[in-house]
Amino acid sequence: MELDALTEGFTRRDWQTVTETDDPVRFAMIGLGWWTREQAMPAVAAGELCETTVLVSGDTTKAQSVAADTPTVEQTLTYDQFHDGEASDAFDAVYVATPNARHLPFVETAAELGKAILCEKPMETTVERARQMVATCETHDVPLMIAYRMHTEPAVRRARELLREGYVGEPVVVHGSMTEPILDLVPDPDQWRLDGDLSGGCAAMDLGIYPLNTARFLLEADPVAVSGTVASVEEAFADVPDEHATFQVEFPGHTTACCTASQNAHMSSHIRVTGTAGEVRVEPAFYPWDDRQLHLSHGDGEITVDFEQVDQMETEFEYFAHCVLTETDPFADGEHGLVDIKTLKAVYEAAETGRRVAVGE
Amino acid sequence: MELDALTEGFTRRDWQTVTETDDPVRFAMIGLGWWTREQAMPAVAAGELCETTVLVSGDTTKAQSVAADTPTVEQTLTYDQFHDGEASDAFDAVYVATPNARHLPFVETAAELGKAILCEKPMETTVERARQMVATCETHDVPLMIAYRMHTEPAVRRARELLREGYVGEPVVVHGSMTEPILDLVPDPDQWRLDGDLSGGCAAMDLGIYPLNTARFLLEADPVAVSGTVASVEEAFADVPDEHATFQVEFPGHTTACCTASQNAHMSSHIRVTGTAGEVRVEPAFYPWDDRQLHLSHGDGEITVDFEQVDQMETEFEYFAHCVLTETDPFADGEHGLVDIKTLKAVYEAAETGRRVAVGE
Repeated sequence: MELDALTEGFTRRDWQTVTETDDPVRFAMIGLGWWTREQAMPAVAAGELCETTVLVSGDTTKAQSVAADTPTVEQTLTYDQFHDGEASDAFDAVYVATPNARHLPFVETAAELGKAILCEKPMETTVERARQMVATCETHDVPLMIAYRMHTEPAVRRARELLREGYVGEPVVVHGSMTEPILDLVPDPDQWRLDGDLSGGCAAMDLGIYPLNTARFLLEADPVAVSGTVASVEEAFADVPDEHATFQVEFPGHTTACCTASQNAHMSSHIRVTGTAGEVRVEPAFYPWDDRQLHLSHGDGEITVDFEQVDQMETEFEYFAHCVLTETDPFADGEHGLVDIKTLKAVYEAAETGRRVAVGE
Repeated sequence: MELDALTEGFTRRDWQTVTETDDPVRFAMIGLGWWTREQAMPAVAAGELCETTVLVSGDTTKAQSVAADTPTVEQTLTYDQFHDGEASDAFDAVYVATPNARHLPFVETAAELGKAILCEKPMETTVERARQMVATCETHDVPLMIAYRMHTEPAVRRARELLREGYVGEPVVVHGSMTEPILDLVPDPDQWRLDGDLSGGCAAMDLGIYPLNTARFLLEADPVAVSGTVASVEEAFADVPDEHATFQVEFPGHTTACCTASQNAHMSSHIRVTGTAGEVRVEPAFYPWDDRQLHLSHGDGEITVDFEQVDQMETEFEYFAHCVLTETDPFADGEHGLVDIKTLKAVYEAAETGRRVAVGE
């Protein structure tokens, strides 16, 4: 990579050919939790290629209150109304940000309605349900993207380019971590993330998926096997196995990734790839409100790249809308998301059995 | 910890009461490889409390050449002469820096001669031999210290103080890594580190011991169980299982450490402890020629502490000599070193069996 590209062109959208449209992709936002309200909707409002026209919520009062603050919204729907296909002319795409265990039915309805689908990660709570989601979207021939916002984060894309160009040589080890005090961030002991049936798992599913998936994205490889340990110590986490999770992922060849995640720790995140010739590290990495940095070392030299931060959610929505407008296949697709579910479920099995578990077909 | 102690008093030797002596501890250096010649001997020469008076080597020509450059040296000995007790009045202590598999016989002779012993890590190649070393030193009632230079590295000692004071809250996860291109550093395909019988293992034994032991030192806890993966890919590493090693260490409670090591990767090292309330990271950490930094975060704030670098080997030798002069027990003792051997051997077993392995008594 030219040095210029690390300074002048760092935040370029290498995927973008269309920068404006008279016909933005109209979104139905499904699930109006804090992430949708405070992260997704402002991002869509700021974007050029998309807008929010419909809100779908189990809480009509909340939906109407949010609608009142959002000039582009034309309609609010209950979950039942959405499933009944009401106002389906008012949106082109859906953003599914409900509890994990409720992703599938919304995706199924959206697919039947022929809508493009952006579904939050983890895509579902079990391998079977994730598979069903992929199959449904294939049957109805609708685009399905899993919302991995690191895929369009400039620091991660530039890191991947450096890896592709051989800057670190052959990747040898990856370290990645995402930790947060969830009960400080969302001070509700009844939140769905702590409900095993709704979340499908806690630290690994909600946070461990970041270092895992970003490692996959950077290495452009999929896991072969995992081992791991999970622990729930505090009473608030009694319904899930993993207040804390630590797992080791084997990639083809001899590359391994050490991933940690905690829902009851200081907020921190990083990912680093060390190879035969150098190292790339994104730190902070995974929280959209932290200013990301890219740290590089190779030979005797070290560089830290500071750059103008992008809104990760805006970039992600713009990318997805761009795919819809240009009729190109979005990445990550459902098959890509499914690999994370298989891997994370293998982590829970490995933790329970104390054995290395192959990540199956 | 007071802020002052992070700036004004960062490099203080909190263990030191005696700063000069007319009667320095006289060392016999056993094994004159590059580490002894370029790291240990200059450190001893620079120290106030010790000096090198005897050289023990299998290569008499080399010993004489080194002796000619070292004014304090009174005597050179072959290995046989050392074992025969020749010139044993000329030294008070030994520094054992031979290949790992040869540590035990030198320690045995030194113990019989009643000398204080500083033995390089890993202390030996097998649990049995490490145990035998501990027993021998107990029988002869001589002090045995295993040479973990991170124990007297100011960044690590200050990090431990912060942990003790609760700066990070309860420790949750540790990440640590040490990687290097050994064949660039020591361009000899026949070196003992690549000989399984002489080294007892490669990346994990020689490098992985740094994040493992430093995690133990910082957490003040010993491993309960491990899982891990090792791989040797390049021909030069055919005789050892671990050109690369990745392992996960479980500590009592729910704290886990992810450790990686490679003898065929970019030179890099770090260790970080993330807890319920904050994070401490030493990076770079383990190479004496890198300028170490201590990175702290807690609440919303972050600090990077730069400090005047100390010579890690000089500090280690001074600490050991200080223990000898003040007749106090050195730490790490042999029992402490034995825990690392048990843990690392469990890592190899875990890698071979694909199972979590308890670290035994």
